Amino acid sequence: ESGAWTQVRRMLNSGLPPVDVAHLLESTPPKERELLWSLVDAEQQGEVLQYLSYDVQTEFLTRMDAQELLAATEGLDTDDIADMLQRLPNAVIHEVLQSMDTQDRHRVESVLSYPEDTAGGLMNTDTITIRADITLDVVLRYLRRHERIPDSTDALLVVSRRDEFIGRLQLNTLLVSDPNITVREVMETECVVIPASLPENEVANLFQKFDLISAPVVSAEGRLLGRITIDDVVDVIRENADHAVMSMAGLEDEEDTFAPVMRTTRRRAVWLGVNLLTAFLASAVIGLFDATIEKVVALAVLMPIVASMGGIAGSQALTVVIRGMALGHVSSSNAQWLLNRELIVGALNGVLWAFVVALVAMLWFGDWVLGVVIGAAIIINLVVAALSGTLLPMLLKKLNIDPALAGSVILTTVTDVVGFMAFLGLATVFYLS
Amino acid sequence: ESGAWTQVRRMLNSGLPPVDVAHLLESTPPKERELLWSLVDAEQQGEVLQYLSYDVQTEFLTRMDAQELLAATEGLDTDDIADMLQRLPNAVIHEVLQSMDTQDRHRVESVLSYPEDTAGGLMNTDTITIRADITLDVVLRYLRRHERIPDSTDALLVVSRRDEFIGRLQLNTLLVSDPNITVREVMETECVVIPASLPENEVANLFQKFDLISAPVVSAEGRLLGRITIDDVVDVIRENADHAVMSMAGLEDEEDTFAPVMRTTRRRAVWLGVNLLTAFLASAVIGLFDATIEKVVALAVLMPIVASMGGIAGSQALTVVIRGMALGHVSSSNAQWLLNRELIVGALNGVLWAFVVALVAMLWFGDWVLGVVIGAAIIINLVVAALSGTLLPMLLKKLNIDPALAGSVILTTVTDVVGFMAFLGLATVFYLS
Repeated sequence: ESGAWTQVRRMLNSGLPPVDVAHLLESTPPKERELLWSLVDAEQQGEVLQYLSYDVQTEFLTRMDAQELLAATEGLDTDDIADMLQRLPNAVIHEVLQSMDTQDRHRVESVLSYPEDTAGGLMNTDTITIRADITLDVVLRYLRRHERIPDSTDALLVVSRRDEFIGRLQLNTLLVSDPNITVREVMETECVVIPASLPENEVANLFQKFDLISAPVVSAEGRLLGRITIDDVVDVIRENADHAVMSMAGLEDEEDTFAPVMRTTRRRAVWLGVNLLTAFLASAVIGLFDATIEKVVALAVLMPIVASMGGIAGSQALTVVIRGMALGHVSSSNAQWLLNRELIVGALNGVLWAFVVALVAMLWFGDWVLGVVIGAAIIINLVVAALSGTLLPMLLKKLNIDPALAGSVILTTVTDVVGFMAFLGLATVFYLS
Repeated sequence: ESGAWTQVRRMLNSGLPPVDVAHLLESTPPKERELLWSLVDAEQQGEVLQYLSYDVQTEFLTRMDAQELLAATEGLDTDDIADMLQRLPNAVIHEVLQSMDTQDRHRVESVLSYPEDTAGGLMNTDTITIRADITLDVVLRYLRRHERIPDSTDALLVVSRRDEFIGRLQLNTLLVSDPNITVREVMETECVVIPASLPENEVANLFQKFDLISAPVVSAEGRLLGRITIDDVVDVIRENADHAVMSMAGLEDEEDTFAPVMRTTRRRAVWLGVNLLTAFLASAVIGLFDATIEKVVALAVLMPIVASMGGIAGSQALTVVIRGMALGHVSSSNAQWLLNRELIVGALNGVLWAFVVALVAMLWFGDWVLGVVIGAAIIINLVVAALSGTLLPMLLKKLNIDPALAGSVILTTVTDVVGFMAFLGLATVFYLS
């Protein structure tokens, strides 16, 4: 092994912090990534793994055996371990769990028993709990017996004898209060308590709304199960944002930037195929009017304008409504106002741009009928775009279909079909009758 | 005033927490919002204002006079006050600052002196500072003299006599350490220190990378200016995500979901106009081949398919590269690999779908030349889409143009123009020669 290799190996295992090694791996094409990963020591791999994105993490995880997994996950947070195990075959999960010591196994199993995208799947079990009837002085002495307090601990959790959550003692309060008073006198009882079954995006909303650093997670019976910390919530927020952007282009969130050719081709092909179906539908509509186009070729020249203006206007309405729904602004009480606003905006912009396009069309082809037809088609398509851009996401949400993924394809189909139909249909009436 | 009004007023001013009042205002159409806002007491308005999004906040702020602003901003965090003042006329800013007490004024002025989107504009000045040579016992007694410790304080900041930042004493460390040792012995010196001029998205990256709760902000000379807390960073992350989604549809980030008709029409019209120019360009390209279309009307029927497949494939490459750049994965050393991968993926998917479309076209119109022409055009357009989807964001970034805003318009122009040109051009060669 040459000197350069030794140097790279040293850098990966002690020179760079694990988060930077993970970033380096994410920024590397497959072959080099493979090589770099093989240079990371077994005991360092777990630290690095937890910072990798889903796609890349899965790639490495699926190639490890139970012993390697056990070595790699040692010392990681419970939620990170559960997260990694979740995507492996049941037999491997079982084997890894069997090799853990009892306490760790119980912890991981408790997190694994909840779906990954709920509070239960997000929580950690590294809480420091205290009783309500002791004095702060006792708490302070109890803490000093710890080597360290878990990261992102802003409060100690107060539990009853039966492990029921009853309140939070903020470290800030502990530090400024008289040591002789009891926990019960200064603990917060009106604090955010998260049920283990709460979906992760609602957890994120609570953290943002109340500027939380950490929050307790409880079972349906009120027993304390663990806590969620802001760093995991930040990841949820990032992933949700990523999802919104990526799924609009039919891409996986947490997709590996340097995914190999075949995986990339396969994934993208699906979306292209879906889009092709809608494109054929639009073509079929145009095909209905081939006689008209044959007579007036200018129609073929101008028809993409009508479809494209509708697509843009529709995607604007769609984006605003999807975002408004995600922020919780849209409800049954104001949906009507929103629809009216979008329809009026669509009509106004329709009239404005219809006028411009009609004028250009008349001057270009010296044909005032063409101007009237394209103007009318644009107004129709922009109003329909507003209508479908607003109602479509609401409808999809009711049907439990992700509007960010399906919304834009369906919308484009609508604005293409309506655009071509209105433009060529009107032209047929005017030119062929 | 009827009983119902009194009840609403009570709910707005004491029943609901300010964050919920803000959410209620955000979820209300203009007229009702106006009415609700007029029912919020003057001293409550500031609390509510800080939770409103940019658009809605500005709407209310611009209608307040200096006295109302002063009343509303009392007790808010320095960074929130600076944030609000920043968008008001200079005369109003001056008047408000003059009416503040000296200490507050200096704090707000220090934040105002940095651009809003840098660490300096994001920081708070509510830090608790200590000296390095005192014992932890002294620190504990010093803290007990405070009524409360500022929110999101996970560490005390250690400064020299000249106010230079020299380290952090984590509260967690303070709580588990022997009270008789000095701050210097247990303080962290290898911690993240943020220069006031650092852009806010780099601040967000640092917080995510190191799972920070708070971090000190220092001047170029190393003097401690304040601190940034995770709750403000979460807002930055949310806003950046919002920006990515909204700007792809040519919308403002932090746009008011219930913006009134005229403002909405005006803002959307601009984007429709930009898009119209690119649509006219595509039309001009089609116009070049009107003789060919007149002869073979099937070309007009099928041509949207070529353009649309190119648009989808291009936007997939564009989205992956923009995201990869935002995550810091893409650099000059791996851009070539990425370009090659995209070109190969484009070619493979091009061949796959060219085959499918060619087959359908042949069967539909009973014309094998049409199949060959559309197949070739799809391959060409998908490869060009991969090329421009990959290089365009890199180029735009170099020119300091936001790729999320400009990328998709330019890309669609390219894929439309190339798609129509390839398809109709090849058809002209095959049919008219």
